[in-house]
Amino acid sequence: MKRTLGVCYYPEHWPEAQWAEDAARMAELGLTWVRIGEFAWSRIEPVPGRYDWAWLDRAIETLGAAGLKVVLGTPTATPPRWMLDRHPDMLAVDAQGRTRGFGSRRHYCFSHRGYRHESARIVTALAERYGRNPHIAAWQTDNEYGCHDTVLSYSDAALKAFRDWLAQRYQSTEALNRAWGNIFWSMEYSSFDDIGLPNLTVTEANPAHVMAFRRFASDEVVGYNRLQTDIIRKFSDAPIAHNYMGRITEFDHFATGADLDIASWDAYPLGFLSDRLEVTPEHKRRFVRQGDPDFQAFHHDLYRAVGRGRWWIMEQQPGPVNWAPWNADPLPGMARLWAWEAFAHGAEAVCYFRWRQAPFAQEQMHAGLLRPDSAPAQAFHEAGEVAKELAAMPDVDAARADVALVFDYASAWAWQTQPQGQDFDYFRLAFSFYRGLRRLGLNIDILPPDCGDLGNYKLVLAPGIATLSAPLLNALARHNGASLVGPRSNAKTVEFATPVPLPPNLPGLAATVARVESLPPDVPVPLDLGGNFLHWREKLETEGTVVERSTDGWPALVAAGGLHYLAGWPDETALDRILTTLCDARGILVDPLPEGLRRRDSGTHRFWFNYNAVPVERGEVTIPAAGVYWEKLD
Amino acid sequence: MKRTLGVCYYPEHWPEAQWAEDAARMAELGLTWVRIGEFAWSRIEPVPGRYDWAWLDRAIETLGAAGLKVVLGTPTATPPRWMLDRHPDMLAVDAQGRTRGFGSRRHYCFSHRGYRHESARIVTALAERYGRNPHIAAWQTDNEYGCHDTVLSYSDAALKAFRDWLAQRYQSTEALNRAWGNIFWSMEYSSFDDIGLPNLTVTEANPAHVMAFRRFASDEVVGYNRLQTDIIRKFSDAPIAHNYMGRITEFDHFATGADLDIASWDAYPLGFLSDRLEVTPEHKRRFVRQGDPDFQAFHHDLYRAVGRGRWWIMEQQPGPVNWAPWNADPLPGMARLWAWEAFAHGAEAVCYFRWRQAPFAQEQMHAGLLRPDSAPAQAFHEAGEVAKELAAMPDVDAARADVALVFDYASAWAWQTQPQGQDFDYFRLAFSFYRGLRRLGLNIDILPPDCGDLGNYKLVLAPGIATLSAPLLNALARHNGASLVGPRSNAKTVEFATPVPLPPNLPGLAATVARVESLPPDVPVPLDLGGNFLHWREKLETEGTVVERSTDGWPALVAAGGLHYLAGWPDETALDRILTTLCDARGILVDPLPEGLRRRDSGTHRFWFNYNAVPVERGEVTIPAAGVYWEKLD
Amino acid sequence: MKRTLGVCYYPEHWPEAQWAEDAARMAELGLTWVRIGEFAWSRIEPVPGRYDWAWLDRAIETLGAAGLKVVLGTPTATPPRWMLDRHPDMLAVDAQGRTRGFGSRRHYCFSHRGYRHESARIVTALAERYGRNPHIAAWQTDNEYGCHDTVLSYSDAALKAFRDWLAQRYQSTEALNRAWGNIFWSMEYSSFDDIGLPNLTVTEANPAHVMAFRRFASDEVVGYNRLQTDIIRKFSDAPIAHNYMGRITEFDHFATGADLDIASWDAYPLGFLSDRLEVTPEHKRRFVRQGDPDFQAFHHDLYRAVGRGRWWIMEQQPGPVNWAPWNADPLPGMARLWAWEAFAHGAEAVCYFRWRQAPFAQEQMHAGLLRPDSAPAQAFHEAGEVAKELAAMPDVDAARADVALVFDYASAWAWQTQPQGQDFDYFRLAFSFYRGLRRLGLNIDILPPDCGDLGNYKLVLAPGIATLSAPLLNALARHNGASLVGPRSNAKTVEFATPVPLPPNLPGLAATVARVESLPPDVPVPLDLGGNFLHWREKLETEGTVVERSTDGWPALVAAGGLHYLAGWPDETALDRILTTLCDARGILVDPLPEGLRRRDSGTHRFWFNYNAVPVERGEVTIPAAGVYWEKLD
Repeated sequence: MKRTLGVCYYPEHWPEAQWAEDAARMAELGLTWVRIGEFAWSRIEPVPGRYDWAWLDRAIETLGAAGLKVVLGTPTATPPRWMLDRHPDMLAVDAQGRTRGFGSRRHYCFSHRGYRHESARIVTALAERYGRNPHIAAWQTDNEYGCHDTVLSYSDAALKAFRDWLAQRYQSTEALNRAWGNIFWSMEYSSFDDIGLPNLTVTEANPAHVMAFRRFASDEVVGYNRLQTDIIRKFSDAPIAHNYMGRITEFDHFATGADLDIASWDAYPLGFLSDRLEVTPEHKRRFVRQGDPDFQAFHHDLYRAVGRGRWWIMEQQPGPVNWAPWNADPLPGMARLWAWEAFAHGAEAVCYFRWRQAPFAQEQMHAGLLRPDSAPAQAFHEAGEVAKELAAMPDVDAARADVALVFDYASAWAWQTQPQGQDFDYFRLAFSFYRGLRRLGLNIDILPPDCGDLGNYKLVLAPGIATLSAPLLNALARHNGASLVGPRSNAKTVEFATPVPLPPNLPGLAATVARVESLPPDVPVPLDLGGNFLHWREKLETEGTVVERSTDGWPALVAAGGLHYLAGWPDETALDRILTTLCDARGILVDPLPEGLRRRDSGTHRFWFNYNAVPVERGEVTIPAAGVYWEKLD
Repeated sequence: MKRTLGVCYYPEHWPEAQWAEDAARMAELGLTWVRIGEFAWSRIEPVPGRYDWAWLDRAIETLGAAGLKVVLGTPTATPPRWMLDRHPDMLAVDAQGRTRGFGSRRHYCFSHRGYRHESARIVTALAERYGRNPHIAAWQTDNEYGCHDTVLSYSDAALKAFRDWLAQRYQSTEALNRAWGNIFWSMEYSSFDDIGLPNLTVTEANPAHVMAFRRFASDEVVGYNRLQTDIIRKFSDAPIAHNYMGRITEFDHFATGADLDIASWDAYPLGFLSDRLEVTPEHKRRFVRQGDPDFQAFHHDLYRAVGRGRWWIMEQQPGPVNWAPWNADPLPGMARLWAWEAFAHGAEAVCYFRWRQAPFAQEQMHAGLLRPDSAPAQAFHEAGEVAKELAAMPDVDAARADVALVFDYASAWAWQTQPQGQDFDYFRLAFSFYRGLRRLGLNIDILPPDCGDLGNYKLVLAPGIATLSAPLLNALARHNGASLVGPRSNAKTVEFATPVPLPPNLPGLAATVARVESLPPDVPVPLDLGGNFLHWREKLETEGTVVERSTDGWPALVAAGGLHYLAGWPDETALDRILTTLCDARGILVDPLPEGLRRRDSGTHRFWFNYNAVPVERGEVTIPAAGVYWEKLD
Repeated sequence: MKRTLGVCYYPEHWPEAQWAEDAARMAELGLTWVRIGEFAWSRIEPVPGRYDWAWLDRAIETLGAAGLKVVLGTPTATPPRWMLDRHPDMLAVDAQGRTRGFGSRRHYCFSHRGYRHESARIVTALAERYGRNPHIAAWQTDNEYGCHDTVLSYSDAALKAFRDWLAQRYQSTEALNRAWGNIFWSMEYSSFDDIGLPNLTVTEANPAHVMAFRRFASDEVVGYNRLQTDIIRKFSDAPIAHNYMGRITEFDHFATGADLDIASWDAYPLGFLSDRLEVTPEHKRRFVRQGDPDFQAFHHDLYRAVGRGRWWIMEQQPGPVNWAPWNADPLPGMARLWAWEAFAHGAEAVCYFRWRQAPFAQEQMHAGLLRPDSAPAQAFHEAGEVAKELAAMPDVDAARADVALVFDYASAWAWQTQPQGQDFDYFRLAFSFYRGLRRLGLNIDILPPDCGDLGNYKLVLAPGIATLSAPLLNALARHNGASLVGPRSNAKTVEFATPVPLPPNLPGLAATVARVESLPPDVPVPLDLGGNFLHWREKLETEGTVVERSTDGWPALVAAGGLHYLAGWPDETALDRILTTLCDARGILVDPLPEGLRRRDSGTHRFWFNYNAVPVERGEVTIPAAGVYWEKLD
């Protein structure tokens, strides 16, 4: 498959006279795609019910005439100000009880039925008008669901919808009381209408209550997205995408993904490094202008799974952004490296955000391919370079990996609901295992938590999954390869109770987690073979093979056949040893990489990515700082 | 007196079929007591006014039949959901103005008259039914007053009650204005109904206003508790206890204690170390699985005073808990050590919390004597060991100490109201003096602030008491032993003004605090004889004997006869010297202990407690890690 | 001009019998001024409409009879409790939506028309009665505008006034939408009544919206102050002052200053060091009892500009205060040093706050010249010493400086609105440049941002001014001396958009800021000639002379003639070199000073101030710790 480039564009931000020139420059640069429309509701429908299609017709025509394919976004992330006159209670409410007002974006509660109706109306109007437009080659629903902490809303609309959801799920309050253990602290309900949202309680709410609310909130996003995809499909055959945001775990992307044709994500490597990664100050400093060497790859692999093979980068950071605590300037070369890394992981398209830096409003400090004065910015040249390289490059189809990692959104909710130790975070745990595999130079696939077939994977990792699904348990039982489960896997029932018999209840492995302990980061638990457990460990009683122990004698890694259970959160030293041993035993070739150098094999090529600010030697090849190198595989 | 063990049990959490076996195992383990009922309101009164006693009758009968004595708790800490339909305004409001909702526990405002009426009703019903039940051998009122910051409420109910309280106290707004100095900043009131609660003011409220509110709030707890004890006593002769929580200072425990027969507290050494102690990271790391070596002893001695000699541990940590920032697993031996330390300090009973770990709801990660699958957990075995040891042990009555520390809840409110330096905390100060005495191997008694008789104490400490009571001042004047007062003692009038003449106004000591300074922790004030003042020091003008000075010449310790005034907050080095000198002069034998080793003499035995994770040599004896050792006193 | 001393006094706090003695002691000490009245509303008007002038008449007469001149404050910072019955909605609301209640001070919203009316009424009554009183020699409006974060209010009153202000400024919502770029994220408005306040939005509000609100809020303070000055001038010829507070930048002091005769500020050196300075822990420790060596001087020079030459210290710290995180005791000598430093910078008067320490209410821990028991405190003696020295000192008129720094309040708002890097703060930036000049021993003038004449200044600094005014740009173009502009100067239009052509658009300098990067404090950008940029740097494209580069080749300092642009935030090493080079080239004699030693020339004398806690040698002179030394200039 041929990979392509694109860009995000806002015709409504610029004089119409400039559109044609912009379009011509995009095409000349080698771009294929242009995404438009996702924030333009106030221009599409300036007055309730009065649509103004003319400008958008002309914009699409102008872009299409230049040979560009259009991704058309539904504008539902930014309802106009008049919407609040019609639905004053449509706004979300935060956990502190404050209404989240108009004046930026994402100012709606997913549960508000009136706003759902309005969303259906505008999506219908848009899809009707452009569903068969030859330039519209893809759709995007809304924009970055969950960004700015917008999944969880404590509004009246959410409260009512939650009660309905509970009534559907449990059918009787007696069933709900039993499921949640509401006898504890006399929390029993006699009517679904007595149940509140789990915020502002005196001390922590029942975790089962919280988890139900988290599941509900995720379902609301899924339902809202499906509302849009159902409409679009009535009028258009073009594929539908949504642009997810990095490290947003508040809703189940696999579930929204099931209603979409393409997964895409918005990759801002420097913003993410500054804003949302638990790493050392040294690590942040080392990669300040390059981004974390693994964070993008993780999301590439995650969204390849979410998109069932089809995925894009819908927004690619082109230069400094505006929203992180600090916003450094990417090293020259990074805008090219990031794009190539995405392609090596199977991206169909990489779209830079945005064409021209806006001189006004919230993102005026967010770089584009062009500066506000229309002069090319650094990434403009790098995008052009990538376009030329792509033209010369044979297809770079994704290769199936030998190793896989199971990723589960519900576990992120579970361990936020009940971290037990204040630094226990599911994403952090799963990502640390992913990093371990990357350090060994491996291609990795990510699997959904209800995966029922582990195929030919030689090694499957499933750390920290609160409730292992029946299909996955079955697949683990039947799997020929090795698997590594734990810590804290299968530790909860689906209703967030402790299972009896006690966890982990894995097929064929006689093991019981007798108790657990969470530990401050300065209290490591040393292992006999080197390295430590950090943050978390478990006291296992087992009749399985004890592969490793901590120095105080507790089983650290136990196995029955290929199935391994890890009884703690390993540091890098311990994880590297454990993974290397497992790989060696299963004939997986590992290639321990120097810091900041990463690799990925496509079906035909081996790609090297140097995230360092200095060159790295790799055999006879010197890969420059911020450089990409590829070689043909035999 | 024979010491006993017990456990907390929730029959309503388990199938009735299991009760008898549970009771038999408790008895077999050597337990005497079982506390029940304190969260069971929704089962006792599932519908308003319709009581269901049958299950509770059977539970008590089952436990009693196994030979156990029952402590019956009033269930007022967890009003059922239907209570809110009857009293929608009964909830407390936090300092930010947010209502603290249903869904956990302690969801009531102490000042709400409607809820007081409901509380009286359920307590009456319970006491009527079980007041003469032969198995009910003690009562507990409510549960952990003040836990989850529930003493201070900013609700309308609190506002109205506060105004009434003020009107009673001051009789006229003129008197109140004078007492508070409301002329400052034109804060004068002309009606009690104009007075608000002291939260959400533009800058700090008048500290006299805040202190009045703190006194009021404490009185509300006392009144609420007395409501219950008055009722219970009408129907029962069994002693009444309340289970206090560690380091809760928002209400005056001596005042509630006056209405109770027994003081008890809930001892969670690892949770407290992780959650509520100002210690170095090294200290937290060293004692992460053992708990602080002095925190429990302090509370033992405090509650011996609050209970006028009669005190229990109502809840003893058995394993990892769920509510601290991190929740480590106690070292094997600690569940035994903690119990023995309590007995050595005079506890009548130690009850472990709880019998079986619940697999559901908020405390599903809180260990019990049994695991959720009913298998014994570590503490089960240790409790059994203690039971056997107790059977072999002669009575371990408490010995009167040579040294005493005065503890005053109102001073905790005073210095929270006006810390002057942001790390000035009364509990921290008083506890640091307590630790100093413990490091010297001394038995310590704690005295209430209105103590009028210092008896034969050879040394009495009274640091940081904002307003010394007339009885205590008289007692100090008459005292034959040494006393150490200050820093910041007697610095305020009862209306929270600066006294004129200036503090400390101690009997027989010509000294004036000319001014004070608070200091960041990295600005020590070195003393001539070694060590430093930290956080706080005072400029004393004195005609008394200057015993010590700071290196810049300010008097640091002054004396007149046995009465000493300390003009700063000493670090460990300074405190150890000062206390040692005072002890030596009064013939108090000190025994400076190595870190983590502590001792306590009962009337007949000397007990050694090794809080370290490694053995400690003591003469010819090696006390193992987490070990207890005792020897008969001559 | 003869410099004088004064004190703040609250006759309403003390028995009338004490007034005469207090007045006599003030006069005897050598004080000239006594400020009264600014918090006394509840005594002036105890009941709405019923004035009680008698006590104030007598107080003024008593003070005047002792030879003291009275500064009379309007009491509008502390409306009495009854005011809220008349105007329940007069309270400000914080950014979280919480009403800021009665019980301290500054409890009003500047935008409330009812409260403006009441303020006019009380000021009229006061000015009518005392406008011609011979003892009233100056006025003070209100007290410390902006203290306790009181400029920005999110009340309904503010909302309505903001909409009116917007309607006046923009005339149509179309113009406003264009100016703010509201097409971005569909934020367009069709009515001014649809526009909200920019708080509690889902993510950041449009910075143009925020900046408009900031300008509005500043205008409200200016209008409120003018309301008072207009009234006072009708009845009195005495000069009018306001007492500003340190590092308050929420309103434009130059704008309020234009309506006043005298600027004054309240100088609390130890409080400010503890509370509001970004310095290292070592720096805080070194100067803990002396205050920052530059912070006071900066404000002296700032208020000399705000007062157009006439300025006072209205409140001078005399000893420990009560409101900082820690409140140390000033070294003996500092109360004298601080006064002399003010005089050296041209202060007409220095008034200590306050005469006698209050034993009650919020400031009972705030020292005065007298202790609560009327004994002299340390500063009493030092004030007397200053009085004697002043009597012996010829006039100390301010000297015009060779170097100037432009200071702009709107830029403080701009970079709070859009810091881009989380440690980018305008005051911090401007103050760091000021410090650089002070380290070189220079006299400094501060200039307003609309300064149109740079006169004979040999060097003018203007870092970080978001929008350079037309007069200043013209003045820079015509200036014969050197100037240093940047970083981040002229980076925004007045509507907070990025200008096109891109910044800095300086006269005669061909330079374009192609892009910027903000950096964490641990990521320095080394410069070729030594030192680093920190926090911020810019990529310049220029045809000007590149004077310096960073080691990675970016231009760091560029020049065209005397105009220099600095493309980053320099550390001390870099700044010292750059300033020294500029000074050397322009014949400005620099005198690099040791840490903590500072100097200032008056028209006749050179003053040395030793902020260190140890003596400093300066040539043959040893200046003691906390000492002042002066020598006659030739």
